[in-house]
Amino acid sequence: MIIVLKPNATKKQIAHLVEKIKALGLKPMVSTGVERTIVGVIGSEDALRVQPLEVFPGVEKVMPVLKPYKLVSREFKPEASVVAVGGVKIGGKHVVVMAGPCSVENRQMLMSTARAVRQAGAQMLRGGAFKPRTSPYSFQGLGEEGLKYLREAADATGLKVVTELMDVRDVELVEKYADMIQLGARNMQNFELLKEAGQSHKPVLLKRGLSATVTEFLLAAEYLLSQGNFNVVLCERGIRSFEDQTRFTLDLSAVPVIKALSHLPVVVDPSHATGHWEYVEPMAKAAVAAGADGLMIEVHPNPETAFSDGPESLLPGKFAALMKEVKKVAKTVGRTL
Amino acid sequence: MIIVLKPNATKKQIAHLVEKIKALGLKPMVSTGVERTIVGVIGSEDALRVQPLEVFPGVEKVMPVLKPYKLVSREFKPEASVVAVGGVKIGGKHVVVMAGPCSVENRQMLMSTARAVRQAGAQMLRGGAFKPRTSPYSFQGLGEEGLKYLREAADATGLKVVTELMDVRDVELVEKYADMIQLGARNMQNFELLKEAGQSHKPVLLKRGLSATVTEFLLAAEYLLSQGNFNVVLCERGIRSFEDQTRFTLDLSAVPVIKALSHLPVVVDPSHATGHWEYVEPMAKAAVAAGADGLMIEVHPNPETAFSDGPESLLPGKFAALMKEVKKVAKTVGRTL
Amino acid sequence: MIIVLKPNATKKQIAHLVEKIKALGLKPMVSTGVERTIVGVIGSEDALRVQPLEVFPGVEKVMPVLKPYKLVSREFKPEASVVAVGGVKIGGKHVVVMAGPCSVENRQMLMSTARAVRQAGAQMLRGGAFKPRTSPYSFQGLGEEGLKYLREAADATGLKVVTELMDVRDVELVEKYADMIQLGARNMQNFELLKEAGQSHKPVLLKRGLSATVTEFLLAAEYLLSQGNFNVVLCERGIRSFEDQTRFTLDLSAVPVIKALSHLPVVVDPSHATGHWEYVEPMAKAAVAAGADGLMIEVHPNPETAFSDGPESLLPGKFAALMKEVKKVAKTVGRTL
Amino acid sequence: MIIVLKPNATKKQIAHLVEKIKALGLKPMVSTGVERTIVGVIGSEDALRVQPLEVFPGVEKVMPVLKPYKLVSREFKPEASVVAVGGVKIGGKHVVVMAGPCSVENRQMLMSTARAVRQAGAQMLRGGAFKPRTSPYSFQGLGEEGLKYLREAADATGLKVVTELMDVRDVELVEKYADMIQLGARNMQNFELLKEAGQSHKPVLLKRGLSATVTEFLLAAEYLLSQGNFNVVLCERGIRSFEDQTRFTLDLSAVPVIKALSHLPVVVDPSHATGHWEYVEPMAKAAVAAGADGLMIEVHPNPETAFSDGPESLLPGKFAALMKEVKKVAKTVGRTL
Repeated sequence: MIIVLKPNATKKQIAHLVEKIKALGLKPMVSTGVERTIVGVIGSEDALRVQPLEVFPGVEKVMPVLKPYKLVSREFKPEASVVAVGGVKIGGKHVVVMAGPCSVENRQMLMSTARAVRQAGAQMLRGGAFKPRTSPYSFQGLGEEGLKYLREAADATGLKVVTELMDVRDVELVEKYADMIQLGARNMQNFELLKEAGQSHKPVLLKRGLSATVTEFLLAAEYLLSQGNFNVVLCERGIRSFEDQTRFTLDLSAVPVIKALSHLPVVVDPSHATGHWEYVEPMAKAAVAAGADGLMIEVHPNPETAFSDGPESLLPGKFAALMKEVKKVAKTVGRTL
Repeated sequence: MIIVLKPNATKKQIAHLVEKIKALGLKPMVSTGVERTIVGVIGSEDALRVQPLEVFPGVEKVMPVLKPYKLVSREFKPEASVVAVGGVKIGGKHVVVMAGPCSVENRQMLMSTARAVRQAGAQMLRGGAFKPRTSPYSFQGLGEEGLKYLREAADATGLKVVTELMDVRDVELVEKYADMIQLGARNMQNFELLKEAGQSHKPVLLKRGLSATVTEFLLAAEYLLSQGNFNVVLCERGIRSFEDQTRFTLDLSAVPVIKALSHLPVVVDPSHATGHWEYVEPMAKAAVAAGADGLMIEVHPNPETAFSDGPESLLPGKFAALMKEVKKVAKTVGRTL
Repeated sequence: MIIVLKPNATKKQIAHLVEKIKALGLKPMVSTGVERTIVGVIGSEDALRVQPLEVFPGVEKVMPVLKPYKLVSREFKPEASVVAVGGVKIGGKHVVVMAGPCSVENRQMLMSTARAVRQAGAQMLRGGAFKPRTSPYSFQGLGEEGLKYLREAADATGLKVVTELMDVRDVELVEKYADMIQLGARNMQNFELLKEAGQSHKPVLLKRGLSATVTEFLLAAEYLLSQGNFNVVLCERGIRSFEDQTRFTLDLSAVPVIKALSHLPVVVDPSHATGHWEYVEPMAKAAVAAGADGLMIEVHPNPETAFSDGPESLLPGKFAALMKEVKKVAKTVGRTL
Repeated sequence: MIIVLKPNATKKQIAHLVEKIKALGLKPMVSTGVERTIVGVIGSEDALRVQPLEVFPGVEKVMPVLKPYKLVSREFKPEASVVAVGGVKIGGKHVVVMAGPCSVENRQMLMSTARAVRQAGAQMLRGGAFKPRTSPYSFQGLGEEGLKYLREAADATGLKVVTELMDVRDVELVEKYADMIQLGARNMQNFELLKEAGQSHKPVLLKRGLSATVTEFLLAAEYLLSQGNFNVVLCERGIRSFEDQTRFTLDLSAVPVIKALSHLPVVVDPSHATGHWEYVEPMAKAAVAAGADGLMIEVHPNPETAFSDGPESLLPGKFAALMKEVKKVAKTVGRTL
């Protein structure tokens, strides 16, 4: 940690600071420059992280040298992690596609969607039984009934189920039916939910918060790993910006950025990010070209009647066409699909 | 709701859309312009809100005419709401100040802070027993022990307690000790928590999410009211922007905007928004000048040793000085403090 | 244009509004709904665009139905435009790569960079002779000397020159040496410069402003076309967001969005957007996968000594490798490179 | 400047870096920590600012210690600057109000507005003769005719004129009629215009760019001061965010932030920031409470017929009422108005 002092910091203030650093068991190194005095601190930054050194008299700013996360970092584990969801491996050579409706609406629509996405090459079935909805008057999901339909449709077609957990009291219920627990964007910093999911034996798909920096995203994942669950896949799903032609701004640069900083696999959700089905295929191709380990895509047999997110859902036929195109791109980056 | 058709929309497509609208029990009004055909829909927009009309062939865009929230709106209740927390009334002539440490650290520091803020004119004691922390390695709060200290300090000084609820399983526990339940910014769209707090008999302080629009903020409040809890106070606490000299960007315009759209009281938290104690006083004065019904301010007897948010905490002496200055501003806008 | 009235709008207010609309030669259509009265306006929206109808008493909001731009729109010209820069065609089957240093630093470095990028397959040479620099103390460019080097290096290698115009007084000077005039992100709404460039006979590369919406970006291009210059290529180069791991947030969704709304070609600059050379190749591949018509990439023979933007510049060897990879991606989307 | 090395940086890489730093005439100080080696550099950071040290092998990140601006900083000049515009002093005890229409539309409306704002207590007349408009089809201003009307109206009423300069070729023209040159938000990084205005003998009002950080804003001002013009007033006018209930997000915290970093006066424009006249008065009061040295407010005798920005303009009567309210707030912060 580097502490930059104000130009007019007094000797007494510097001595007070140095004393404090020593009291924490660390080694201060004072270096007097032309315009500023700087104090470098040698030793673990953890002790300092909880100490608000900015408030010490004479201090101008404090610059941490190390990253605030550990277990998720490349430095902790240089090789890329592969997360297994049943037999499906995310983070390896194969690009994994998770597809299905936004919400589970009924048994039949889910079954028909599952068959269609399986045939087109998807390996996992997505679909919400519990739905985080901006308005209290929107459809909130079928609950356990929806989970049952997901399990049934997945088993009938050989897919794995990924579905959202919204409530700490539902962990066991969701674990019972799902192969992978999804934590949604709006819950990325629901720390109680992170702690519970971190103790689950099921792998977790963690979606990036609407306005989470990559650092905050990795710290949310750190919650999971620090509770013992290392089977974590990150999902970029668009961040909030001023642009209004798309529902969110898909931050595809986050894919190579996260891969540089962390060993965890990264998948991309172009459906929620863009909010328009026409833009899903180009962004799916771009995501794989950028190095994504997987895709999460909304497919609905009849978007005209969808209970949620109809505008961004692909018809099964369009999804099959997308898969063919993405497969070609995958090949050019040394991946299969 | 207004549906704008594409320039090349066919008669068949228009007929298909019109039929659908009628099937929902609504009255379509087709109006053919020079460059576009438009379909106005007369009747409740609720039926249409769940229908993804954008996906109908020939449709270019759908423009809702009505606001998506009801119970929180000025149209539902034109006069301003006053929320009573014990005898303390938020939303009336008196500007209510909630002050205290970011986290409850121990009994003694809380007691001394409570005495100091009470003496300076605060009416409510703030302090976290459960802390939402970006890093899993940061201090997570004292839990029930912290709640007990809050209750004790408040009772000893005649303050009311507002403290954060983070976990749906803790509702009764927090209700037992607190006078007002705080829902934090990171949980503004934790819909399960909103539903639980909406069923509580305690008033709720709802903080605006880091990247929540005012509309989303009001919809989150709508969750609370629609569950029966009308004792809701909104808190602007800074939104995320590109600016990095402050921790967040305090959106003070949100105060008059929300007051125009909703009957709920609005308080402002300049401490978390700016992240620097030097900026707290000017922004507190600005907030009251803009029409805020209250302030939430961090005070710590010794910011050098604070477990969290030291840089933005005021010393008791500085807080007392702030109160004097804010009082003068309050008077100019016809308020007391 | 649709005018939504307030719930309590009076008959007199409605009559006043209707009269005004008629006075503008337009046809008002009043439609009385359950909760709101709405006035649709038939006729050209241009007359209404300059009239601040929001301020009429009783008006709640005004919703334009048509897009504010014309000449740049797909509706005006459904087929994609191809912009010729000398013999190089942007917007056709071939993906055009513009490469070179951020700033022209000296004759020798430019010549060696030109040769290297030409050999690797670039068709255009980029490089700044006039540099928009955030700090007045940064290198501001070589001026005309730099333009001469660009021309010389391009002629010697068979490349076309694209370089930035910053000053309305330099139009002829830049036209003399350049094949294509670049208007930088910080000048996207320098309307005087847009008007001058709109009257130039040289094609224009218009970069998106740091916080410009796609609509504002297209309106800036409309300035150029409305002055007579239809040879316009748009460049997505990253927008401002809260994320700080990259210099800007590359908004790749803008590629399919712009292609849906406009006939103009779109190129992508992954160097400025990410600010780190390691992320340039993945984002270049993603851009082409998303449908970009070209790439603008910074290449420097020795980034360690670059006068500007060293961290995002590729060494010639790395650029050649990038070209090979991007070529493969281009093929999968039916393009050559 | 602090250079943080990668965990695996080699001795050879460190030696290479140290050598480079010495070659620049600076003194490197290598400090080997538990997890990272750090190189502190003593001497002027200017030499290093142009050197892209991030690209040196083994370097993880470079952290500047000093601020990138000088002449505008509090460290260069600790006492607050007062900028005189004719006899009107901005930055002293008196809060200066600049009021008038968005655009100069004709002689009569300007004269009547000037009289009204003068009577209500404004000291400066604002109004655009050259208008930066997002659409090429919007009213672009009266040009020199507008400047003449401004001069005439100001002279007749005893006001000073502030008006926008958009084109480097118009400097002398605007200087001839105006008392203060305004540089608009969209031109904040039009560096050619900054250089010209920096050589003017007239004071300059510099508006913050839509997505400019405070640091970039101060660097734009540094362009003016470094050219010799120290009579610079900064204007906060709202920044771009995701919030859409206001036209921009007024960043009032920027007032105390800039005052902490710089000696230049700061005024606030609540009209453009909010885009709705109802929000202008509360935000004007908030601005003065936060410490603003002045206000820029749009007033129009008949907003229903305004050529631009009607929705945010105040009627003269409402402006007079605002002045009375703001005066009260000014008094509470030790200012007059």
